[in-house]
Amino acid sequence: MGRIALCISYDGAAWQGWQTQPGGQTVQDTLEAALQQFLNTPRVATICAGRTDTGVHALQQIVHLDTDAIRRDESWVRGLNALLPASVAVQWARPVTDTFHARFDARGRTYLYILRSAPVRSPALRGRVGWVHDALDEKAMREAAVLLQGEHDFNAFRSSQCQAASPVRTLDALDVQRQGEFLFFEFRANAFLHHMVRNLMGSLLMVGRGRRPVRWVADVLASKDRRLAAPTFMPDGLYLAHVGYPAAPDLPLRPAYDVLHHHLGLLCPADS
Amino acid sequence: MGRIALCISYDGAAWQGWQTQPGGQTVQDTLEAALQQFLNTPRVATICAGRTDTGVHALQQIVHLDTDAIRRDESWVRGLNALLPASVAVQWARPVTDTFHARFDARGRTYLYILRSAPVRSPALRGRVGWVHDALDEKAMREAAVLLQGEHDFNAFRSSQCQAASPVRTLDALDVQRQGEFLFFEFRANAFLHHMVRNLMGSLLMVGRGRRPVRWVADVLASKDRRLAAPTFMPDGLYLAHVGYPAAPDLPLRPAYDVLHHHLGLLCPADS
Repeated sequence: MGRIALCISYDGAAWQGWQTQPGGQTVQDTLEAALQQFLNTPRVATICAGRTDTGVHALQQIVHLDTDAIRRDESWVRGLNALLPASVAVQWARPVTDTFHARFDARGRTYLYILRSAPVRSPALRGRVGWVHDALDEKAMREAAVLLQGEHDFNAFRSSQCQAASPVRTLDALDVQRQGEFLFFEFRANAFLHHMVRNLMGSLLMVGRGRRPVRWVADVLASKDRRLAAPTFMPDGLYLAHVGYPAAPDLPLRPAYDVLHHHLGLLCPADS
Repeated sequence: MGRIALCISYDGAAWQGWQTQPGGQTVQDTLEAALQQFLNTPRVATICAGRTDTGVHALQQIVHLDTDAIRRDESWVRGLNALLPASVAVQWARPVTDTFHARFDARGRTYLYILRSAPVRSPALRGRVGWVHDALDEKAMREAAVLLQGEHDFNAFRSSQCQAASPVRTLDALDVQRQGEFLFFEFRANAFLHHMVRNLMGSLLMVGRGRRPVRWVADVLASKDRRLAAPTFMPDGLYLAHVGYPAAPDLPLRPAYDVLHHHLGLLCPADS
């Protein structure tokens, strides 16, 4: 048996999240069905770096699987992409050591949220970019973001369905940048709780719209009370953009904004 | 009765083109249903600048209609957008003179085709941007584009279903620009034949891939024979981006690349 790492990108609007479900309308079910067909085996189990929710996209989801099959790296990519729908694509494949683990070896995850602040919605961006019709004060949001960084009990920002044993996470970065009508939010943490990014977005937007003062987010955080945080924001603009694997430095991972630029052609903060 | 001009944008991937059909799955059917509800009238007829095909998008489709209703410009936008699905949005509304005609007054139409040339497809761009896995020679395509500009009989590049009385059109501009993996094709003409842009794209790509020499496009044009042109290229990256109305200079139309940048956030040639 050998272990293979795959980099997967997908349009989350087409799927009920990553993780396998009885109905089968998930990215994992679709990928595993393609793997079974490609490898001509009854079942192939996959493990991923980040189990994204319904509507959440991935630019660099990392997955591993074990197989007896020997294929060239490009054969994995072309063979699987020929079997996958347009909303899912394998970006690359690499053999890894038997000890590599897509979830447990991941040392940091980066989510990007792309938001458009404009009076009228853009149909061309539906499902791919979040939208608010309000003007936003990004300076206030940047100040609020600073209060959320670091190691905290993020209980106030996780969903009631969150199954994580501990609500403590380390938010290494929460950066807010603007390019014209577009705002880019970068969330970097060791790991995330269920709905954590979307709940943080909801609360940052309360500040950005001027409905709450900057220090309110610190109060919500300290309360550990879910009922005090803002509603969960729409998933449309949320992308799993990068996963760090210090133990596997040869994986051809791209920086978060670089892969966003590559996949969406967006004028990203990293370009400017 | 007063006449109103509306600017409409839509995601063509969700619709069977602009023009009304018995099944009702068209942008016109959807817009007219919203208008009936908004105005509380039995039927509202609309006339558009360019009848886009299935899968083709619009950033600035211009429509006119006649009505007794008096509404503020912003009321048209907010009221209709509340009734329209996410794939269609009214960008602005303006009262116009009774002689304004969205189709007959249009003096020039600009279509943009956005293409990504990359080894692997991007799920985040599916339906919005065309894709080829080949490397492309944009210098050769630019040379071929020059041969297509001007007034010609474009019979070789129209579909067999085209109902236009004359196949003669004036292609004022066909520009090809590249930004990294993205290629931008700008087609500007007095009017277009059915499938004309997608057929021109197919033939330009034959040259860009090196499968035909530059002068081949001139031979196809001169032949007036549809069977000699390349297959119709996918609609995914095609946008109706601008319509010119010299008789109505007050309409808040934006330049083609400006509206593309505004709607998709793409790093456009006009930005550089």
